[in-house]
Amino acid sequence: MAPTLEGSNDALMPDFPRGPLHAYRARASFSWKELALFWDGADMLRFKKTLFSTLENDPLFAQQRGGDLSMEKYRELNFLRCKRIFEYDFLRVEDMLGSPLKVLGLVTCLGTYDWSLATKVFLHMLTFGSTIYSSGSERHFKYIPKVFNMEIFGCFALTELSHGSNTKAIRTTAHYDPTTEEFIIHSPDFEAAKFLVGNMGKTATHAVVFAQLYTPGGQCHGLHSFVVQIRDPKTLLPMPGVMVGDIGRKLGQNGLDNGFSMFHKVRIPRQDLLNRTGDVTPEGTYVTPFKDSRQRFGASLGSLSAGRVVIVAMSVVNLKLAVSIALRFSATRRQFGPTDEEEIPVLEYQMQQWRLLPYLAAAYAFDHFAKSLFLDLVGLQQGLLENDRSARQAELGREVHALASAGKPLASWTAQRGIQECREACGGHGYLAMNRLGDLRNDNDPNCTYEGDNNVLLQQTSNYLLGLLAHGDPGGARFQSPLKSVAFLEAYPALLGQRFQVASLKDCLDSSVPLAAYEWLVCYLLRESYEKLNQEKRSGSNDFTARNNCQVYYCRSLALAFLELTVLRRFHEHTHQPGVPPPLRAVLQRLSALYGLWSLSQHMALLYRGGYCSGEQAGKMVESAILALCSQLKDDAVALVDVIAPPDFVLDSPIGRANGELYKNLWTTILQESKVLERASWWPEFSANKPVIGSLRPKL
Amino acid sequence: MAPTLEGSNDALMPDFPRGPLHAYRARASFSWKELALFWDGADMLRFKKTLFSTLENDPLFAQQRGGDLSMEKYRELNFLRCKRIFEYDFLRVEDMLGSPLKVLGLVTCLGTYDWSLATKVFLHMLTFGSTIYSSGSERHFKYIPKVFNMEIFGCFALTELSHGSNTKAIRTTAHYDPTTEEFIIHSPDFEAAKFLVGNMGKTATHAVVFAQLYTPGGQCHGLHSFVVQIRDPKTLLPMPGVMVGDIGRKLGQNGLDNGFSMFHKVRIPRQDLLNRTGDVTPEGTYVTPFKDSRQRFGASLGSLSAGRVVIVAMSVVNLKLAVSIALRFSATRRQFGPTDEEEIPVLEYQMQQWRLLPYLAAAYAFDHFAKSLFLDLVGLQQGLLENDRSARQAELGREVHALASAGKPLASWTAQRGIQECREACGGHGYLAMNRLGDLRNDNDPNCTYEGDNNVLLQQTSNYLLGLLAHGDPGGARFQSPLKSVAFLEAYPALLGQRFQVASLKDCLDSSVPLAAYEWLVCYLLRESYEKLNQEKRSGSNDFTARNNCQVYYCRSLALAFLELTVLRRFHEHTHQPGVPPPLRAVLQRLSALYGLWSLSQHMALLYRGGYCSGEQAGKMVESAILALCSQLKDDAVALVDVIAPPDFVLDSPIGRANGELYKNLWTTILQESKVLERASWWPEFSANKPVIGSLRPKL
Repeated sequence: MAPTLEGSNDALMPDFPRGPLHAYRARASFSWKELALFWDGADMLRFKKTLFSTLENDPLFAQQRGGDLSMEKYRELNFLRCKRIFEYDFLRVEDMLGSPLKVLGLVTCLGTYDWSLATKVFLHMLTFGSTIYSSGSERHFKYIPKVFNMEIFGCFALTELSHGSNTKAIRTTAHYDPTTEEFIIHSPDFEAAKFLVGNMGKTATHAVVFAQLYTPGGQCHGLHSFVVQIRDPKTLLPMPGVMVGDIGRKLGQNGLDNGFSMFHKVRIPRQDLLNRTGDVTPEGTYVTPFKDSRQRFGASLGSLSAGRVVIVAMSVVNLKLAVSIALRFSATRRQFGPTDEEEIPVLEYQMQQWRLLPYLAAAYAFDHFAKSLFLDLVGLQQGLLENDRSARQAELGREVHALASAGKPLASWTAQRGIQECREACGGHGYLAMNRLGDLRNDNDPNCTYEGDNNVLLQQTSNYLLGLLAHGDPGGARFQSPLKSVAFLEAYPALLGQRFQVASLKDCLDSSVPLAAYEWLVCYLLRESYEKLNQEKRSGSNDFTARNNCQVYYCRSLALAFLELTVLRRFHEHTHQPGVPPPLRAVLQRLSALYGLWSLSQHMALLYRGGYCSGEQAGKMVESAILALCSQLKDDAVALVDVIAPPDFVLDSPIGRANGELYKNLWTTILQESKVLERASWWPEFSANKPVIGSLRPKL
Repeated sequence: MAPTLEGSNDALMPDFPRGPLHAYRARASFSWKELALFWDGADMLRFKKTLFSTLENDPLFAQQRGGDLSMEKYRELNFLRCKRIFEYDFLRVEDMLGSPLKVLGLVTCLGTYDWSLATKVFLHMLTFGSTIYSSGSERHFKYIPKVFNMEIFGCFALTELSHGSNTKAIRTTAHYDPTTEEFIIHSPDFEAAKFLVGNMGKTATHAVVFAQLYTPGGQCHGLHSFVVQIRDPKTLLPMPGVMVGDIGRKLGQNGLDNGFSMFHKVRIPRQDLLNRTGDVTPEGTYVTPFKDSRQRFGASLGSLSAGRVVIVAMSVVNLKLAVSIALRFSATRRQFGPTDEEEIPVLEYQMQQWRLLPYLAAAYAFDHFAKSLFLDLVGLQQGLLENDRSARQAELGREVHALASAGKPLASWTAQRGIQECREACGGHGYLAMNRLGDLRNDNDPNCTYEGDNNVLLQQTSNYLLGLLAHGDPGGARFQSPLKSVAFLEAYPALLGQRFQVASLKDCLDSSVPLAAYEWLVCYLLRESYEKLNQEKRSGSNDFTARNNCQVYYCRSLALAFLELTVLRRFHEHTHQPGVPPPLRAVLQRLSALYGLWSLSQHMALLYRGGYCSGEQAGKMVESAILALCSQLKDDAVALVDVIAPPDFVLDSPIGRANGELYKNLWTTILQESKVLERASWWPEFSANKPVIGSLRPKL
């Protein structure tokens, strides 16, 4: 590398302070700066650095994690920060199209700082703004500049109190009145109140509201979306007929105001129907380019895929933060040792390595997956905007949908479990709020249920795969998916004849081993699910019951295994491509192997049961390989964290700081807390007002 | 049953209001009142009812879950409630000995209401109070009445900032000064500050402090415990030389004030050494009945076992509450259905049954285990107090220690995972703080790390089992443990020849099937762990390294499987005993089978790998049996919840209320929240102070 570039890298990635983490850093097999450049690219690194430094230099963004911020204050602060983000305008609208990954970069950087802020910005600008853009037409573009200059504030209102997953059963109505050319938005009762809507609680002035569209004469045309003004931007008071409120405290993201609303015959102009998939003429005639309401419904909910892809990336951020904290802690926390005199870092224990390093590998694997899937989505959306009606575009839509629908569950669950493991791996220190693992868990929590409950979403993916098998001609063109994620099925069912054949532990240390096993596993689960479904149908179940009775152990496992395979395949290919700088190959390939084998190891029962593995050796070899990779990676762990951890100010965890001064960081932070050494204001309740024991004893 | 008893049962267990849950209640295969009587007994039911009604009738205990209670206010409220508990004096000291299960009942009832309160009371009365009683001698009994009339307030200070698991390395010192007959308690630096100590943050006046005892001349006699006054009861101001403060917000239990303290040469009377295991004469000579400091150390920490047993029971409470909420929700939440017109309760879906019913079964299994293990502990402690030096007593001590050391990890993890599953199974409604699943998760969280990190504790149990194998004579007397939990090892290694032999699905629906499989599994893991350990040692590892390298996949799995077997065995025996009323047998035996098979199903890979199972049928049969049991139990689920759920006031979850009016309960609760419909106080920040987009744009 040329010296000038070296110099600029040092400015972009300054060296870490020398301290307790130095020993591990010195033992790393690679340069963390070289990996950072390869992983993110200089352009993205600069973008992140600018954004993070800007926040750090602005007192409005001072962190107050351990403190006692009331919900109201947090929401105010979060709104002020949101507004400040618009003033910073880190990514101009005109730049978004040029570098779409930066859109994801903006959301994830803000989320790395605080998810309440990121979701507030994201729901307004991207969910609300881009739904209007993609579901509406030219007559709605007037809203877009108002979104981007915050003249109005938006939210996306689909879910109701009594309906979430079953969106088709949503009960809010929109009756068209041709005499005034208006729609009448109405909630029949409180069970049809829009519910859990982010930004609706206190700030939104406008909502994209999903409602059943009725034309005069009473015909229902199914779910459509409308732009409904819910508050007056001048006063933030509700519009006439709108009852809008806050749903209160949630498990996480409490800077975001989630709300509810009921509409009492609220009239909106005909033009505020978002009319890309269906429209009503001034006279009241319904027109749509779709023949079938099911088809139209699918197209109108298509924009949900984007949300799922973003949640994959959100989950990855949380996992990266958690493993960064837990691994820096583990490299500096010493406990026990071979002699009473010498204590060793807990990272030296095989147990601690096994608990944490697979999640580090998963963080890298999913980080790559999130970015690549986002680019696939961008490709898909470009086609949609260009009105591409080709078969390839349609197939791409199905494939991205299938990947997003299982990617979101897999990523959010992996993050949830990983955060919990990290929190426990930090013992009592992980239990302190100031160290952030609790907030990470709480803020990641909704990723498991919103934008589609994880278990329900997985059905989309298994349906896609079963559909390929049912309609496809095995070995035929159907499996030539645009992104090649099902290309391996061309070899179905022959793949089922494959067996685990690894001669030595050394041969087991590459991700090609779990990759081959996963291909067998997905074929096996596909066959089993297909047969189970047919058996259910043959035994007289209707389609609804038959599908429900083949989720557990069959379709659910199929969808997850398929996504694990896809994440692994992309990571394997990324780490084995010729463009990887030679000094980085070993460590990246180890990460890929570790993620693959560890993920696969959950499925050993099926591998044995289905005959892919036999004998004790296969299982033991997979376990030995996982532990060997952990051991090989433990000296690289701190440097791998240095690549993915944000600056200390953003990471905001005393036990996870880059200087590694675990106890000094903790102690200083504790002593900064409010009233830390003061006696409690209520001390006389102990000292003076003594209880009379048993004075109130109830008769038992 | 006699009519009079019927009448009193109705008063004790009034019928539930008729409502949306009625349909499931009507379909139950048994009477929930009969099961409640069998499960808890009338005496305990009365105790609970009195306690819960008393809290409900006292405005001090009004719930404010969704609200915006500051940490300081919560701690004040929690202290006031703690004091009120002393006024109620639900369980007099003199009654405790007569019905020891009520001690557990008191702790768990208070925890069912709020863990911050229960731990505050428990740490003061039982941890502090009983440590003084059991670790001290007559000269310390003066403290006991002061504990029970709250003249002083106690805490238990073992952990330090830099040492938790490795208690032997604790660095606080206690130097004896014969000239004044005092100990000088000293923290050498902040890393030796006592840390995370419950009640120390704001309230404790006295602490049991663990410190290294030094006699004149500089000899260290290892860790001992001392009663140290840290605050003046008259003022709650710190004693001279004591720096004591609050560690701030934690992930859960924020009504409890966890604290830290540093001692600067704090002098305490010689008599305040808790001297059961070692004492210092006025002249400064150390005397102990133990030959070996390791032995003495073990005895002095023996009281930790009690904490672990109580944590098993605490975890069970959390699991019971979570499944109660999630199952009542699932029985009333309707989503999708066989036709567009008809939606069915989500409990009707096999997926939802499979997600929740095994945790319901686990709640029953662990509830029984917690109670029986507590009684074992009481037996053990009686022996200790009576100075029983028999071989049986020593063996009982080891057995209870082994069961508690793996019981606490297994119960706390099962609860943690179960709560997370319940929270997700309630979708967006589970994400609302008012529904309590978040608080349950957060309050259960420390159970996984305090009183010994789960993974570290498991080693105690595997060491116990390996020790039996190493020293024991297979088939000999060593396996005749007092509680019979290792009696099956008499058939080791012959048991390893057993195979999974179940002829039909019907035969698989009893817990004898997983019981047999677990016996094989524990033997298999025991042999594997033993061989692995020897192999590590043969390859030249020292004892420390050898042990560390056989935890993952070996000793850790061994300890967990052994405890799962024990929990299952006790539940199996309890549900198959002749005393079970005939109408309850079917449902209880199904719960036992479901818990056993579901728990076993995590180990299918090992069962195949080790040859216990072969062929596809075995695995499929276990899965089919789990699903069949779920299906058989789903109509009993609501009634099973009715047995274990506390009254609505205590459960405090709108979606979990007994009336089943899911949406009405939620809606009413939301509208009761503070400022729910008010516009935000900071509305002008949106309406007037508009951002100038890009006005602060940084140079990228």
